[in-house]
Amino acid sequence: MTYQELFQQISTKRSYLCVGLDTDIQKIPAHLLKTDDPIFEFNKQIIDSTADYCVSYKPNIAFYEALGPKGWESLQKTVEYIPKSHFTIADAKRGDIGNTSGLYARAFFDKSSSGLDFDSITVAPYMGSDSVTPFLAFEGKWVILLALTSNPGSSDFQRLNVEGNTLFENVLRTSQEWAGAERMMYVVGATHPSDFQKIRAIVPDHFLLVPGVGAQGGNLEEVSKFGMNKSCGLLVNASRSIIYASNGTDFAEKAKQEAQALQQEMAIYLDKYL
Amino acid sequence: MTYQELFQQISTKRSYLCVGLDTDIQKIPAHLLKTDDPIFEFNKQIIDSTADYCVSYKPNIAFYEALGPKGWESLQKTVEYIPKSHFTIADAKRGDIGNTSGLYARAFFDKSSSGLDFDSITVAPYMGSDSVTPFLAFEGKWVILLALTSNPGSSDFQRLNVEGNTLFENVLRTSQEWAGAERMMYVVGATHPSDFQKIRAIVPDHFLLVPGVGAQGGNLEEVSKFGMNKSCGLLVNASRSIIYASNGTDFAEKAKQEAQALQQEMAIYLDKYL
Repeated sequence: MTYQELFQQISTKRSYLCVGLDTDIQKIPAHLLKTDDPIFEFNKQIIDSTADYCVSYKPNIAFYEALGPKGWESLQKTVEYIPKSHFTIADAKRGDIGNTSGLYARAFFDKSSSGLDFDSITVAPYMGSDSVTPFLAFEGKWVILLALTSNPGSSDFQRLNVEGNTLFENVLRTSQEWAGAERMMYVVGATHPSDFQKIRAIVPDHFLLVPGVGAQGGNLEEVSKFGMNKSCGLLVNASRSIIYASNGTDFAEKAKQEAQALQQEMAIYLDKYL
Repeated sequence: MTYQELFQQISTKRSYLCVGLDTDIQKIPAHLLKTDDPIFEFNKQIIDSTADYCVSYKPNIAFYEALGPKGWESLQKTVEYIPKSHFTIADAKRGDIGNTSGLYARAFFDKSSSGLDFDSITVAPYMGSDSVTPFLAFEGKWVILLALTSNPGSSDFQRLNVEGNTLFENVLRTSQEWAGAERMMYVVGATHPSDFQKIRAIVPDHFLLVPGVGAQGGNLEEVSKFGMNKSCGLLVNASRSIIYASNGTDFAEKAKQEAQALQQEMAIYLDKYL
């Protein structure tokens, strides 16, 4: 999916919501455990009930990997099931020496090899340029690079002072040499809305993937006010607050209500801040 | 495996060699492609022929993941097959918010969930403390944290000047608050032997996992001279130079010769520098 196509989806749906599929076998409603593939059955119903209100889905790879080969099969079926109109994100936080990152790219982008065909993958920057660029060798695919994450530990290294700027600002600047806004996005946590102005000064055009709204406590209006650019430039993720809104048989209906509520709030901010 | 048990293995075998199982379906000998599980068949023969000369095996997870569920099955069989006397490393470079790192820990440490039961996992430090500590919640398991990697891109961020020291020195210092030498190791590339003295001044007791000898050009004697501590404190990895020493039917025999040659060199350095 291209930058323009993504903006088109956002404009049409009045939504920049990404639904995080952090599907944990230990948390899904008990009645699903009787089905052949409880993880896929859960995701399928979540997708059916939320697709109208979001523009993106983000399976969190850890949750599938924790189940071994079966989890991987559930992931394949899930990615296959997501409508082509939705931007898919492998939230994998990968990154290794060039040779190995090339294999991770095969894993998430090359359907003939792994069965998976995501639009994008989240990548950790610590290992530098040659750990990131192999993902960009796959035409039309996106890298979503970690900049400032939403967790408490983000301050351990990301905010260190590096020659007058923070490390995350340095990551934003250096990585622009690897790809532009048409192929790269950045992860910026909703838990740090006051940093968005600083970030937009460095990357005015890029999309930002913003986790941390919902269970982690980020504020959607502040993120939208300080983070939005002229192409919206935001994908705001909510995972647990949507998919675990209920753990009964009404889980899909409750997920729909949560997703719809976020979409309606986003429609207001698109009018106000775009 | 404990610190003392690992040192015992090294002393007994006169080797601190780790064999990297970067097993690529596109590179293994053609005659294996007829077997049911070529990746496992290759690994099995490599393990049989090298086990006497090494103390550790390090499957590079990207290579298995690139093959989807089948790759994951080959990985399970491989880990199961590695003798219990050998320290196993999931070279996965994972790391995410606490909740998610906990799931990655299940993936690599909890056999009842994923089918895998590694002794250790490589972890990227960018997301800080709560991305690392969930792995340490599994008793007896190790975290091997990226410090200074062997690839060209390592200088993009790892060598940035952070308040008078490099970022990788900062990672070494800060992460010591999370676990000691009995539970944590560091990745330090063999391609930077001149840095080992600086690193040993910060982490005198820790084991260092040293990739980059062999295909990447690192010098084993320099690494041993500057990196060894009183418990050896080194696991030196070689992957491609051993496992792809031949791509004919004699691949296992050639791998054995390469591993044995490295072991013999290591025996000399153990006498000289320990």
